[in-house]
Amino acid sequence: MDSTIMDYNLNIKSIFWRVEKLYKDKEIISRTHEGIKRYTYGDFALRVRKLARMLESKNLVRSRVASIAWNTHRHLELYFAVPLLGGILHTVNVRFHKTEMDYVITEMDDKAVFTDKDIEYKSDKIPVYIFDEKYDDEIESQEPIKDFPDIDERQGAIACFTSGTTGKPKGVIYSHRSIFIHSLSLLAQDVLGISSSDVVLPIVPMFHISAWDLPFASLMTGAKLVLPGPRPKAEDIVNLIKDYKVTIGIAAPTVWIDVVAYVEREKLDLSPLKVVVTGGAEPPLGLIKKLREYGVKTYHAWGMTETEAIATINKSDDINKMSEQGYPIFGFEISLVDAEGKELPWDGKSAGELVVRGAFVTKKYFNNPSNILLNNTWFKTGDVVKIYPDGSIKVVDRLKDLIKSGGEWISSVDLENAIMSYDKVLEAVVVGIPDEKWGERPIALVVKKPGKEVSAEEIIDYLKSLNRFPKWWLPDKIIFVDSIPKTSTGKLDKKVIRDMVKSMLNLR
Amino acid sequence: MDSTIMDYNLNIKSIFWRVEKLYKDKEIISRTHEGIKRYTYGDFALRVRKLARMLESKNLVRSRVASIAWNTHRHLELYFAVPLLGGILHTVNVRFHKTEMDYVITEMDDKAVFTDKDIEYKSDKIPVYIFDEKYDDEIESQEPIKDFPDIDERQGAIACFTSGTTGKPKGVIYSHRSIFIHSLSLLAQDVLGISSSDVVLPIVPMFHISAWDLPFASLMTGAKLVLPGPRPKAEDIVNLIKDYKVTIGIAAPTVWIDVVAYVEREKLDLSPLKVVVTGGAEPPLGLIKKLREYGVKTYHAWGMTETEAIATINKSDDINKMSEQGYPIFGFEISLVDAEGKELPWDGKSAGELVVRGAFVTKKYFNNPSNILLNNTWFKTGDVVKIYPDGSIKVVDRLKDLIKSGGEWISSVDLENAIMSYDKVLEAVVVGIPDEKWGERPIALVVKKPGKEVSAEEIIDYLKSLNRFPKWWLPDKIIFVDSIPKTSTGKLDKKVIRDMVKSMLNLR
Repeated sequence: MDSTIMDYNLNIKSIFWRVEKLYKDKEIISRTHEGIKRYTYGDFALRVRKLARMLESKNLVRSRVASIAWNTHRHLELYFAVPLLGGILHTVNVRFHKTEMDYVITEMDDKAVFTDKDIEYKSDKIPVYIFDEKYDDEIESQEPIKDFPDIDERQGAIACFTSGTTGKPKGVIYSHRSIFIHSLSLLAQDVLGISSSDVVLPIVPMFHISAWDLPFASLMTGAKLVLPGPRPKAEDIVNLIKDYKVTIGIAAPTVWIDVVAYVEREKLDLSPLKVVVTGGAEPPLGLIKKLREYGVKTYHAWGMTETEAIATINKSDDINKMSEQGYPIFGFEISLVDAEGKELPWDGKSAGELVVRGAFVTKKYFNNPSNILLNNTWFKTGDVVKIYPDGSIKVVDRLKDLIKSGGEWISSVDLENAIMSYDKVLEAVVVGIPDEKWGERPIALVVKKPGKEVSAEEIIDYLKSLNRFPKWWLPDKIIFVDSIPKTSTGKLDKKVIRDMVKSMLNLR
Repeated sequence: MDSTIMDYNLNIKSIFWRVEKLYKDKEIISRTHEGIKRYTYGDFALRVRKLARMLESKNLVRSRVASIAWNTHRHLELYFAVPLLGGILHTVNVRFHKTEMDYVITEMDDKAVFTDKDIEYKSDKIPVYIFDEKYDDEIESQEPIKDFPDIDERQGAIACFTSGTTGKPKGVIYSHRSIFIHSLSLLAQDVLGISSSDVVLPIVPMFHISAWDLPFASLMTGAKLVLPGPRPKAEDIVNLIKDYKVTIGIAAPTVWIDVVAYVEREKLDLSPLKVVVTGGAEPPLGLIKKLREYGVKTYHAWGMTETEAIATINKSDDINKMSEQGYPIFGFEISLVDAEGKELPWDGKSAGELVVRGAFVTKKYFNNPSNILLNNTWFKTGDVVKIYPDGSIKVVDRLKDLIKSGGEWISSVDLENAIMSYDKVLEAVVVGIPDEKWGERPIALVVKKPGKEVSAEEIIDYLKSLNRFPKWWLPDKIIFVDSIPKTSTGKLDKKVIRDMVKSMLNLR
């Protein structure tokens, strides 16, 4: 039976209501190409209403609009104005190549691009608006829009493409509802616990996964928001922390490593910073310890484009637990399955694929009809994890690095490390190759150390001598090569390697 | 355009998932007629699954089921088992008269009643199950239910009737979604900020407004939950605080006044209590100060049955601000309107009716087709408030005590206090009487002080001499009476008085 509760859309408008009505004196600080911009939520809200009018005049109502931009107030204004008008802001990764940018903008059928001047994006198909003084003047000259429509909460609001290391970038569109619930979940005491007295510095980019929804969460609760602008260096970050009394900073571990190194070198400290939120990779123990010495706690988060950033969080005080990715946040569920999709126990030992569902998890990719869910319910993360009895997860591998043979998994990373521990081997990579009987079988590519001779049998014998691998884990073939293909960022390009091996073996 | 985000029901099942999977070692403590019951979330979850089987065996699946019960673990089990099966738990006010209980149970068409033994509710129409050892044994003997259905989040979960001081009780049905969002909102740092390391003691009754959703919020985040059981006295409450290290207690101000008096008398303290949440009436300044002396902060909340309990919160450190009811929590909006429904400014001066909307606000009453919303959007609270520029509300009157004359409001409370300040008057009450021209006009009933003589003209002259009231505020008639009708709880019974005056004046 139905409830008597009213239908109320959990949408960007309901967040904007708080910004405008409850917190108009709160501040937003933005580091831009032209220096620091500092204004109140009230001024921000007025600018959003003027920007919305400008978008209207350019026929960009209920449209898809791309941004290729840094974390600034201008980007933040688009975060609100575009969805408030019923459109979708497509945040394009600044680090994409021009061809990738063109690809995702075409895929998404964006009607305009808004971008920072240093990015130098050009298009002969759609208008490109550059954040500069002319842009600001044009906004200022507008009559503010009075009323925004009440958008259905399941409508799209922000779009983002995966970074595409294993193929073409794939699009995910967050809904008004998913942004609201995810942001509210971040405010919970047991998640980030951001309050109106916090000063939040999201260094994670607004051009990817909406800076983990930190801009929305901060504005929802009236926190002071500090946006670090274009290409912030350690020095810029430390200056912002000092100048605007930042209490919570959010960035990948590498950023914090740079920040700590800078602070040490310059004999500074990190006060008043209290909390560092980090994710994307495991924070090194040394970093966590160093931050503690400066009085800063580390929260270790896990998530991905497909889960709208933060999905699990580890706030443990126990340094030995800090390598775990932690507990599911609110509105989000996890499960552990084997290669057949059968549930595995949460015993801290069984490793399987992490599958997830929740109010901010994608069910499909944009413009892609493939059913990507397990049992029509669970999104398959591709991460191999263990789950401890208390529900905390620990990522141990990426599934795409696993080989599925006879319904069981073989860890290519384990095999690679073992082969490379043989003293005649310089480098090794193991990939799975289609096999009629077993599904997949492992094949190794090996680069010999200069001046060394080694045979395939010798390597297999060595692997056997380690007494670590079941017989069926051993590679079916070992191919000697001069070098192994890498991506532009120096990672093994397993997709290219797999194709290469397949053509070597005359498979398709 | 739609998002790519999956449909995920924010329902009791998603809260139960956390209870069972993430927090199974956390504890629930329950004060019962038979003493203290202490068990883990894991044991609780198993009991819920067994109770669900028992409900199934009694044909109570997708049914409406009444509880007339104190805050105990058995009541908590019903909070989960009934909605998990797709039914609605109708929490009946223990303080209702038998006839009111029968009325609401018939209205709701409940199929069974679950109740504590001291309540002695009997029915010749539907089965009544009493919480006792036999009840526990029957649950224990069941095979736990394995799977619960995935209930649509807009379905009803918990029903509650208003206490009905101004007519028949009116029913409100909270949805799975409203419970989830309201509970999550309570967990936010800027609302109650409950964490898994808190110990929560909801003294506000589970038989009314689901104990402000505190049981759900606590279990959602893995806090230790302490349930104070039947008719807890100050001594019981202090013992629970001491024995189970309660950190947050929730109750009406009168309860805390008793607790503080008891602690003073017995020369105890309140440690480890950190926070008191109070509402239903304004907490007296003296109480707030006393609690501070014991190291306890007071949060002042406002809400009503129709807003699922806590809707605004004041956590100010400024003691002069503590009489305000505070800021809207997440998923909830407020507005201020005059008698014509026109918006009034948030200037801390204009008084008007508080109207509200949000994810946990009712749009209608159960079984009642009346449209009760302003502009089909806003629920009219009947509270007269001022709103400060920062969005904090201050309740100044109840609308039903206001007289609407010529489109403007006259405060009967103001007039009553003024008349009673005249030294020949013992008591006075002012009510609004229908008037063809003005809508309503004020009429005063006055009881003279023993041995004093006073005329109507004299009182009107006195009111004029105060220079406080516009001329049209002055009562059209002053009627002298020997006494003024009161309710059983000693409050002015304005409904009865209005009828009495109307018949005196031959109006209907």
